[in-house]
Amino acid sequence: MECIEKRVDGEVKYRGVIVNVRLDRAQLENGRIVRREVVEHPGGVGILPIDEDGTCYLVRQFRYPFSRQLLEIPAGKLEYGEEPLSCAVRELSEETGFTADELIDLGACYTSPGFSSEVLHLYLARGLHAGRSHLDEDEFLNVEKHGLDELLAMADRCELPDAKTVIAVLKAARLLSKRP
Amino acid sequence: MECIEKRVDGEVKYRGVIVNVRLDRAQLENGRIVRREVVEHPGGVGILPIDEDGTCYLVRQFRYPFSRQLLEIPAGKLEYGEEPLSCAVRELSEETGFTADELIDLGACYTSPGFSSEVLHLYLARGLHAGRSHLDEDEFLNVEKHGLDELLAMADRCELPDAKTVIAVLKAARLLSKRP
Repeated sequence: MECIEKRVDGEVKYRGVIVNVRLDRAQLENGRIVRREVVEHPGGVGILPIDEDGTCYLVRQFRYPFSRQLLEIPAGKLEYGEEPLSCAVRELSEETGFTADELIDLGACYTSPGFSSEVLHLYLARGLHAGRSHLDEDEFLNVEKHGLDELLAMADRCELPDAKTVIAVLKAARLLSKRP
Repeated sequence: MECIEKRVDGEVKYRGVIVNVRLDRAQLENGRIVRREVVEHPGGVGILPIDEDGTCYLVRQFRYPFSRQLLEIPAGKLEYGEEPLSCAVRELSEETGFTADELIDLGACYTSPGFSSEVLHLYLARGLHAGRSHLDEDEFLNVEKHGLDELLAMADRCELPDAKTVIAVLKAARLLSKRP
């Protein structure tokens, strides 16, 4: 059984810094009217930079919702009207200083499709060239080097809780095993 | 450089159906006060049920934020005070009718750690026994069978955008290759 939900009306209930929250009324195919809450997010990118020898460059940063530091791939939000690929080039440079000869598309990722419109566009960066990182004000992070094999072992031990990071690592490993 | 952010104060700006939004003031180690917006979510579970022959049971359902149907592993939100494992048993039964001899922990997943407190606990379900599904009112979904190899090929072609689903599929494939 298919069930399409048609928006009837709605309003923005919260306008925030990163997200807005919209509360809509939607009509189900059985005619019933239901409430649908949507966290609106501009979307973003995540980039796994990897060397010829399999060394990956990740960032460790404090994440306020969990009050702890997390190991993640470099990432950031799309600016208004920005293309994902341009955003990936910018964020990679800002957070790690790298430019890359090649950004391989690892696909789009819907982080929480039940309630959030956030889409992250994931990339694998190869052919890395070092440069200077240049973080936003009040952005603090450390770049850390980890071998791809080490990251896979961490994923297997459930030690990479960040969704975009474990997806990028596992997809990159499959891709590189076919196209070294 | 480490940077811990200490909560100073804050308030709930939006109380919703699935989420609340809290806006805090936090103090950085350099003394500056910053705003931190947190989408509070109760957390949930996702379960990949798999047969002895590698057949996986996924659900296809309409996701309002994207106005489209998505193929996902069975999943659901934690009820107040509910343990993740109990929630996984309940959601597996509600959405697919299955009970499972074994629920293997695939780890916790932070869907959007930059702004959301959502944690999904992922499981692989084996030793499946069929039963009757019993969905919530206004919950509509179709159960679909897909081979694990087919799901891996879809992941490689970036055709599994749901984060929890691609993580569960890729982690399960690694685990089962070592422990068939």
